[in-house]
Amino acid sequence: MAIVLGPNQYGKAQSHLVRVHRDTPRHEIRDLTVSSALRGDFTLSHVDGDQSDVLPTDTQKNTVFAFAREKGVGAIEDFALTLADHFIAQTPAADGARVEISEVPWQRIDIDGGGDGHDHAFVRSGIGTRTTVVNVDGRGADRRAHVVSGIQDVTLLKSTGSEFHGFLRDRYTTLQETDDRILATDLVARWRYDHTDVDWDAAYESVRALLLKQFAEIHSHALQQTLYGMGQAVLEKHPEVAEIKFSAPNKHHFLVDLAPFGLENPNEVFYAADRPFGLIEACVVRDDASDPGSAWHAVPGWV
Amino acid sequence: MAIVLGPNQYGKAQSHLVRVHRDTPRHEIRDLTVSSALRGDFTLSHVDGDQSDVLPTDTQKNTVFAFAREKGVGAIEDFALTLADHFIAQTPAADGARVEISEVPWQRIDIDGGGDGHDHAFVRSGIGTRTTVVNVDGRGADRRAHVVSGIQDVTLLKSTGSEFHGFLRDRYTTLQETDDRILATDLVARWRYDHTDVDWDAAYESVRALLLKQFAEIHSHALQQTLYGMGQAVLEKHPEVAEIKFSAPNKHHFLVDLAPFGLENPNEVFYAADRPFGLIEACVVRDDASDPGSAWHAVPGWV
Amino acid sequence: MAIVLGPNQYGKAQSHLVRVHRDTPRHEIRDLTVSSALRGDFTLSHVDGDQSDVLPTDTQKNTVFAFAREKGVGAIEDFALTLADHFIAQTPAADGARVEISEVPWQRIDIDGGGDGHDHAFVRSGIGTRTTVVNVDGRGADRRAHVVSGIQDVTLLKSTGSEFHGFLRDRYTTLQETDDRILATDLVARWRYDHTDVDWDAAYESVRALLLKQFAEIHSHALQQTLYGMGQAVLEKHPEVAEIKFSAPNKHHFLVDLAPFGLENPNEVFYAADRPFGLIEACVVRDDASDPGSAWHAVPGWV
Amino acid sequence: MAIVLGPNQYGKAQSHLVRVHRDTPRHEIRDLTVSSALRGDFTLSHVDGDQSDVLPTDTQKNTVFAFAREKGVGAIEDFALTLADHFIAQTPAADGARVEISEVPWQRIDIDGGGDGHDHAFVRSGIGTRTTVVNVDGRGADRRAHVVSGIQDVTLLKSTGSEFHGFLRDRYTTLQETDDRILATDLVARWRYDHTDVDWDAAYESVRALLLKQFAEIHSHALQQTLYGMGQAVLEKHPEVAEIKFSAPNKHHFLVDLAPFGLENPNEVFYAADRPFGLIEACVVRDDASDPGSAWHAVPGWV
Repeated sequence: MAIVLGPNQYGKAQSHLVRVHRDTPRHEIRDLTVSSALRGDFTLSHVDGDQSDVLPTDTQKNTVFAFAREKGVGAIEDFALTLADHFIAQTPAADGARVEISEVPWQRIDIDGGGDGHDHAFVRSGIGTRTTVVNVDGRGADRRAHVVSGIQDVTLLKSTGSEFHGFLRDRYTTLQETDDRILATDLVARWRYDHTDVDWDAAYESVRALLLKQFAEIHSHALQQTLYGMGQAVLEKHPEVAEIKFSAPNKHHFLVDLAPFGLENPNEVFYAADRPFGLIEACVVRDDASDPGSAWHAVPGWV
Repeated sequence: MAIVLGPNQYGKAQSHLVRVHRDTPRHEIRDLTVSSALRGDFTLSHVDGDQSDVLPTDTQKNTVFAFAREKGVGAIEDFALTLADHFIAQTPAADGARVEISEVPWQRIDIDGGGDGHDHAFVRSGIGTRTTVVNVDGRGADRRAHVVSGIQDVTLLKSTGSEFHGFLRDRYTTLQETDDRILATDLVARWRYDHTDVDWDAAYESVRALLLKQFAEIHSHALQQTLYGMGQAVLEKHPEVAEIKFSAPNKHHFLVDLAPFGLENPNEVFYAADRPFGLIEACVVRDDASDPGSAWHAVPGWV
Repeated sequence: MAIVLGPNQYGKAQSHLVRVHRDTPRHEIRDLTVSSALRGDFTLSHVDGDQSDVLPTDTQKNTVFAFAREKGVGAIEDFALTLADHFIAQTPAADGARVEISEVPWQRIDIDGGGDGHDHAFVRSGIGTRTTVVNVDGRGADRRAHVVSGIQDVTLLKSTGSEFHGFLRDRYTTLQETDDRILATDLVARWRYDHTDVDWDAAYESVRALLLKQFAEIHSHALQQTLYGMGQAVLEKHPEVAEIKFSAPNKHHFLVDLAPFGLENPNEVFYAADRPFGLIEACVVRDDASDPGSAWHAVPGWV
Repeated sequence: MAIVLGPNQYGKAQSHLVRVHRDTPRHEIRDLTVSSALRGDFTLSHVDGDQSDVLPTDTQKNTVFAFAREKGVGAIEDFALTLADHFIAQTPAADGARVEISEVPWQRIDIDGGGDGHDHAFVRSGIGTRTTVVNVDGRGADRRAHVVSGIQDVTLLKSTGSEFHGFLRDRYTTLQETDDRILATDLVARWRYDHTDVDWDAAYESVRALLLKQFAEIHSHALQQTLYGMGQAVLEKHPEVAEIKFSAPNKHHFLVDLAPFGLENPNEVFYAADRPFGLIEACVVRDDASDPGSAWHAVPGWV
């Protein structure tokens, strides 16, 4: 028996980059948080304390900022792919790289309710944080790239159109059945693209709109069913998406018992609880989906 | 010399209330976090362990939910005033009450980019959290009510139109002067109304729009100057506002030095830092403003 | 009527300083977060956009780090006083300065359970974060210095010895009386020293120990009574303390109803809730206490 | 091609349980946060909106509290195993269960520096949060149980004894080499037990002590090397541990440049940065370790 180094990765987490495009007086801004990591056989560093294989995390950070100037940012998926390939190229001991980027939305400040907003003043606003996790394995002819994009920080609520009944019961079950409750969640969705020949921005906008529409329109018998329906719609419309995964808390809104005060409460007054919460995690997938390989490497969650 | 009880207050913090209005199939929702507190001579409770003067915080919480059903919510300023008066009425030992409410915005989910949004499905979205702090002193003829409303969770950024130079220097000064930098902040603003005969919703919308517009349009020589100009505009347009206070971090965006990589950086690539940050706090006030009394009682911040 | 600048202050918040004392192989470390602010007539900066009165917040930050080297840190109260006086001296337009410091505890790593711990390896551990808020007004003969020190991040719990009954009731009261409940809080305490001729470290250690001892030993009829007793003990033992203020959530631990499962629950199994929570704020003070002046300037909380 | 349900799990997250043992006047308290989840073929729930296979998350929560009374808590590993087996037994459609528990330490309040602390008054204090993730697959003869225990919330710092040099360089490398720096991290460690016939409490205490000792005593050439050495020591001493994984930020402490102020800084004054940070993740494993199966199912991190 010997003790050895197992899987490992190292990198720089959460470099917060703001990129201003100022070619014209009407500026554009991009607000990205970038994390990169390299994996491979870094036994020298771990076991022998020899760093000659290690491209420092400080260098990774520098590269993020330099590339934002040299190559521009573009779609976060493209920026992540470019960085991942570069880090592998620079680091012979690496056999893979992972780059995760999240981007928060900004809008131009509206002036007097008209026009197209201010040229260089912005307010953080918009629905959802856009995310991507890119994993690249190998280089040259052996290179394989995986893109998992997503959305998070989307809080959704239906004030009706949600039931929950007919569930399994045991000795510890006290939950009442209901045919009208509030359904609410903080959505985290991530979908794996089958390939990288994708119009990333258009795909993101379309998936986001579809997820919200389905949440609204599905008459829910459980959060599970709503999530499945959301995923199904994405796969039906987007052949470039191989699978989609959700992690969604069931944010409980408890109907307040007002009877002690002589009041009815016909689904009007709710107490929104913090913890505990339900947590529903589900994957909707094509039965002939491509092999995910390392696509989900180190993605937080249950997969 | 004796040891005595000084100022004190007690209450229930952060009751999270969601109120659904479902009189028609087109629901309305309100999402409020309510904190209440009573103050006065509660020596019996503190010194003697006798609770006969104390309306429990649990009762305060119950009242918030019951009133949301009985009386409706309305503007948060009105709801807070109603609650404050009620708590004083119920508690003979109290000489004052404080009710703080924050409300987060929700929007109807858009379906296929048209129409007026879904009837009962919502997404949390919008600019800013609306706040109010209401303090009522006394009862009957001696009653005096104060309303301080505000906005928070507004992140603003200008990509140009901001300078900072000509400042005081000493031995420890290394900061470079600049005539073009990013100016960014997470705005917290609170304004005191001179009286309570106000169209709260209209005033809030107007002040919010004005603050954003001024942030955008003022050519800034310092965050201090921008804040002052924002406050001045509010006081000029809103005679019902006696004073306005700001607490605004100067969120540093440092220009990344790309020279080691042979690159220029003409104000395009920035590192957004977390800590430390500048913190600017300022009050803009009419020189004949009414006495604030307890209006700013226990308002977090520097006042 | 004119619009004018009211109270204001500006500074650098949350400079995170780690100071290593390495005069011998047995190192000492100090971990401080420092915020400074200047106040006074800064009309030029706010109204005219002229920064000639303004010592930049960047300079304030530099000074914190430089003084940590030049003058050492010592007790956080002394460090804060030194910084406050310096900032006033450097800034003619200032009439006051505020310096807030919090310090987190570190312990030497224990090796094999014996001896005095490692010479230069540490683990963050210990009870409470030590805080101070220093306000200095004026300079020279008019100088007046105020020190408010405190402790926070102290979570306390009594599993018995706490009652709550005999309280005021109204239509909305449903709370059951109890003669045995869990009492739990996250303590924030701040005490004002009457003068600055104090052994700060010894006073802090003594007050901290006394607060915990009193929390443990007082048979509680309400959190109010417990806090009052804690404050009373501090004032009795520490003549240099003029007053003490508490902000303490009543962290509810609800007895779980196990009757549906055929089980009794004799105060053994509790659900610890997050929100809402009770919030008790109280000041215990000498009736002949000195005038606080600006001592509590901008201290978060209700005072 | 068809769209189908892929991997999924659902459960109740973060039930916060406080268990008081009060058989004698000297109480014991336990403070646990419990999350449970079931996985299997829940197609009916997701696709058809039929909940007859679903044991509600509310029932799972009730069971946690009821079992805390009925069966007691014991070591968190045992409590998690008991819950996981129970949930599988109650839910025919489930083929696996996951129970995650974290436990925070409490100490008795010390009274006057002597004796054994108070009988029923406690303060949250201690080094690290203890964690476990239990995964059980199947039932009866096919049952297989996995236990991954860990520690988190451990902040460590060495003020010397850490070097970093000899690393790979490229065009974007600006980092200076150093033979004396601060090394600091917030440790998250998780180790997989090879079987379940373990004295959980003794193993936890031993691993925790060993991790801290190794962090202190290893002369570091990189955080990678320190982590590997920590893991190696655990595997050498604990034959019941099959592998150990670390996720450890490199919390940068930057030496402040005091030269502009005419001051040297011989590794004494540091600025502790928040973001970005290095992130080192590594697994140390026996080369003949048992198959992990589902042991690491849904464990946050890079695995």
